[in-house]
Amino acid sequence: MSEDWPAAWLRDRLAYEAGEASLFAAALTHRSAGSGHNERLEFLGDAVLNLVVAELLYRRHPKVSEGDLSRLRARVVSAEPLAEVSAALGLGDVLRMGSGELKSGGFRRKSILADALEALFGAVFLDRGLDAVHALIEKLFAARIEALPPLDELKDAKTRLQEHLQSRGLPLPRYSVDRIEGEPHAQTFRVTCTVKGLGLRAQGDGSSRRRAEQVAAERALEAILEQGASPGGQET
Amino acid sequence: MSEDWPAAWLRDRLAYEAGEASLFAAALTHRSAGSGHNERLEFLGDAVLNLVVAELLYRRHPKVSEGDLSRLRARVVSAEPLAEVSAALGLGDVLRMGSGELKSGGFRRKSILADALEALFGAVFLDRGLDAVHALIEKLFAARIEALPPLDELKDAKTRLQEHLQSRGLPLPRYSVDRIEGEPHAQTFRVTCTVKGLGLRAQGDGSSRRRAEQVAAERALEAILEQGASPGGQET
Repeated sequence: MSEDWPAAWLRDRLAYEAGEASLFAAALTHRSAGSGHNERLEFLGDAVLNLVVAELLYRRHPKVSEGDLSRLRARVVSAEPLAEVSAALGLGDVLRMGSGELKSGGFRRKSILADALEALFGAVFLDRGLDAVHALIEKLFAARIEALPPLDELKDAKTRLQEHLQSRGLPLPRYSVDRIEGEPHAQTFRVTCTVKGLGLRAQGDGSSRRRAEQVAAERALEAILEQGASPGGQET
Repeated sequence: MSEDWPAAWLRDRLAYEAGEASLFAAALTHRSAGSGHNERLEFLGDAVLNLVVAELLYRRHPKVSEGDLSRLRARVVSAEPLAEVSAALGLGDVLRMGSGELKSGGFRRKSILADALEALFGAVFLDRGLDAVHALIEKLFAARIEALPPLDELKDAKTRLQEHLQSRGLPLPRYSVDRIEGEPHAQTFRVTCTVKGLGLRAQGDGSSRRRAEQVAAERALEAILEQGASPGGQET
């Protein structure tokens, strides 16, 4: 790392003039490098990113339901797109990390890249406030927000799970109703989604069988993607 | 509802002068009352609340880890405290809802009260920006943030689940490891938490058995509290 790290990188890469340099040093330090790391800023930056993307989508889609806004946002702020934006920015090259992580290629690991980007947003928020970080996030994510699928093509969780499994040549999931509770006009269904090929089971509750299935499918997908992002899982 | 709804209420109760009145009319309209309801604003307000409380905690606790910040925040922004703040404000009395909801006491239902409060935060954010909503949230939640337990008393999810079940006279949960995956230095554990007394099972993944158990316990707790907040469950 150069002596002017990370101010020079911020200036060159983001045209950003850092006020409080220590914030950015922390944002670009992985916990493997010791104290002063980015985990607290990541906590804050995650909330910043969620709000900014919520607002961008809210304004862009004045007629879209809460559920669809939430689905659209998940497409933008989940680990996968974050890691891509982070890698495109070259965050992996300026991230400070311990030698163990360095050797094992931590600077290419998706979760580390995504977390560092969130920490950077946290630092900008503290350094120059919401408007500044809003502008930065909008710049970095505008193309992705533009390219979001039209709403009628937004696929529900069951469809996405099915397509994901098919793309990996795995058998389709099965759904079973475990329990129905409550009065007839206010029932709660509990459904288990079983993904045999991955030895995975996920449960979901909902006010109808269909809704409970969607929740279970969403959780199964999350578990599969978490496995993919974790050190133990496969990294693409 | 008076003719000056909801501007008069905002003025009297929150000393807030509404700019764009239609935002507040939407925020205080439950979906049972038809179109122009508060669900989109609730989506936005949820993100606003999460950020503001994240920032308040981040600044108040400069040495606290991300995990503990996250646990502290959950104590402040979960449905239960939100519903209490909402009820104390009297939001239930000014909420517009359909006659069915009215008759069944929807204005006392926790999830409806909590959602309306989040929608109100969304409206203030759009109306006057982050600083204004920050001030409002700080005013409404300062006492709760002050009263948060000291960190060494912050109980982990397993402890909280156990205490919750004991307080209801139910048998203790059991944890079983379903699966261990990955290389020895980077394993992922999957644990199931079974709450026999409630016919509930929840799964969690983690890089150690202990972590996976905590995640599973957290999900079990969430499921139990969701049941409590849903129309089919018991309301306290």
